[in-house]
Amino acid sequence: MNPDTLLLTPGPIPLPEPVRDILSEPLFHHRTPQFRAVLASVSARLKQVFRTEAPVYTLAGSGTAGMEAALVNFHSTGDAVLVLDTGKFGERFTELAEAYGLKPEVIKVPWGQAVDPELVRERLLANPQLKSVFMQLCETSTGIVNDVEAVGRVLKDSGVLLIVDAIAGLCADRFEMDLWHVDVAIAGSQKALMLPPGLAFVAVAPRASLRMQEAGLPRYYLDLRRYEAALKKGDTPFTPPISLVRAADKVLELILTERLENIWWRSRRLGEYVRLRLNEMGFKLFAQAPSSALTAAFVPEAVDGSRLITCLREEKGVTLAGGQGAFKGRLIRLAHMGSITIHDLDEGLRAIEETLEEMKNSRKAEPALS
Amino acid sequence: MNPDTLLLTPGPIPLPEPVRDILSEPLFHHRTPQFRAVLASVSARLKQVFRTEAPVYTLAGSGTAGMEAALVNFHSTGDAVLVLDTGKFGERFTELAEAYGLKPEVIKVPWGQAVDPELVRERLLANPQLKSVFMQLCETSTGIVNDVEAVGRVLKDSGVLLIVDAIAGLCADRFEMDLWHVDVAIAGSQKALMLPPGLAFVAVAPRASLRMQEAGLPRYYLDLRRYEAALKKGDTPFTPPISLVRAADKVLELILTERLENIWWRSRRLGEYVRLRLNEMGFKLFAQAPSSALTAAFVPEAVDGSRLITCLREEKGVTLAGGQGAFKGRLIRLAHMGSITIHDLDEGLRAIEETLEEMKNSRKAEPALS
Repeated sequence: MNPDTLLLTPGPIPLPEPVRDILSEPLFHHRTPQFRAVLASVSARLKQVFRTEAPVYTLAGSGTAGMEAALVNFHSTGDAVLVLDTGKFGERFTELAEAYGLKPEVIKVPWGQAVDPELVRERLLANPQLKSVFMQLCETSTGIVNDVEAVGRVLKDSGVLLIVDAIAGLCADRFEMDLWHVDVAIAGSQKALMLPPGLAFVAVAPRASLRMQEAGLPRYYLDLRRYEAALKKGDTPFTPPISLVRAADKVLELILTERLENIWWRSRRLGEYVRLRLNEMGFKLFAQAPSSALTAAFVPEAVDGSRLITCLREEKGVTLAGGQGAFKGRLIRLAHMGSITIHDLDEGLRAIEETLEEMKNSRKAEPALS
Repeated sequence: MNPDTLLLTPGPIPLPEPVRDILSEPLFHHRTPQFRAVLASVSARLKQVFRTEAPVYTLAGSGTAGMEAALVNFHSTGDAVLVLDTGKFGERFTELAEAYGLKPEVIKVPWGQAVDPELVRERLLANPQLKSVFMQLCETSTGIVNDVEAVGRVLKDSGVLLIVDAIAGLCADRFEMDLWHVDVAIAGSQKALMLPPGLAFVAVAPRASLRMQEAGLPRYYLDLRRYEAALKKGDTPFTPPISLVRAADKVLELILTERLENIWWRSRRLGEYVRLRLNEMGFKLFAQAPSSALTAAFVPEAVDGSRLITCLREEKGVTLAGGQGAFKGRLIRLAHMGSITIHDLDEGLRAIEETLEEMKNSRKAEPALS
């Protein structure tokens, strides 16, 4: 493994040094006062990061485990729900709803656009059976940020739960769980929380907590009532990923020391900088409402996006993400959240510039075939 | 954190140095040839460790996520299943079955005993509706090892699936998935696999794979069809815990280099040694069919087991596990699997001896109250 590899993907992102140190420390057991102190600290700090008074549960699993927990704990078979689908992770909520026998309605927005909160109001009036609305804060496949606050205003007094996947957006885009009337929020460890993948976090506000007690969908490992009961005793219901939870405590300390407002501002400014530079280099920006977590951009005409990404990774040691779904080979996606600095971005952008130049020259050098 | 802490609990156990080194390395992205190579290697090595030709899937989650995957992927609502309940983790299968609307029959054995395979034959004849039998290889709450081979012989030609939780036993007790006709086997990272908690592994033999395609229970994150399809392309369906998977590759290499037969032999001999020493120190052994992974023993008369464990941890830096359920405060549980050496065990046993002596002296020093 090349330690000089520059990771600019929208999750995972580079691990801060103190996190790497903790991950290599000897383990201690999880049913001890020592671990309970760590879990209590993580849980308290997560509340500050989610901007909520509600409990935040720590689960061993990928972000999708968090999305599934946010669905199975609050619904019964046949429930009508509304999915705001702005890309690949919006689609995942629909797939989850279908897998569990819910009746999802979908507001599907062209990739690259955010959802119009007024459409949510219309659907809400048209279907009084709706139980919940699912949406992304930041949609990683397109780099947009949705207006969660406005959707929260629409749903506030409706009894309809607002369930937000903040996996990619948390600690990059502003997010205010309580102020915006969000009922359930999900985060993952490998985005702006600067940890390896393997932890999902789910926050449950009081209205959702009531729904949780009567929800009929089957669940066990992801049953948040078990996490709730265990956390009241300072525990987790199942063996937790001890090293990751310890590392989470450290990284949350770093985040709260820098202050969320400063982190949001920094990520936004880095995003503006990346978009400016990519624009100058001939990339067309994809997201109409750009997130502060990542930027997605169309590669210039006549450039093979997949090849660009492979060359960057193999020849320059710079890892970017490509487009997903129909945009495979046409987009690059570049993160500017968490531990990623302006120096990292400059290095990445310079590598992109050089590689484009090299690809252009090699195209010129090839004999015309037609 | 005190690096001199000696961890003798039946999961987690101490991490080998090369594992700790890998955990602290910078991350690389999971959708790269680099990660695909690691996943391919882990998957191939897991087959050797499970002793199977069947695919073994790697999931982000605790062992219980693996147990749930082994249930939801092979059943439909109302299916009759038989649970061989030899302790806390046997009970968990029954709870899982009930949570998903199956009809579990239970053979409940007193804690400390293994299940009699002949009872399985009787139940099989009595109930032709049975779809599966769930059992533990090693039951961590009591330290017994079950005769999986004999149960496999009973079920072999019956069409009833044999689903084995080998979380605590794998790489300590002998386990032969294919030879013993096991259809689904589960492992976890934090036992004899010597990794931090956070990974579950599920192996699916052909007969179970057929059942998987028609099973009706709802599932998404734990849907093994997604892992199967992704693994065929060299991928995982969801973002994997990259560092843990890399560490798994290293640890599996260490295990296969030592050879499973040697590891089983070593763990068995260490278990015999521990039982001999504990017996001499006045502990009564709990398990009638002792596992090579751990030993459970009753603390001597008049000793408060919970206090013994607290004193050991706080004053001697030795962490043991106590009894679970009705045996809380009455048992100690001590692992002798994986990275735990005879020197570690000697140190732990000496600390137990000293602490018992100190507790006895302090009892004598107290004025009689009655």
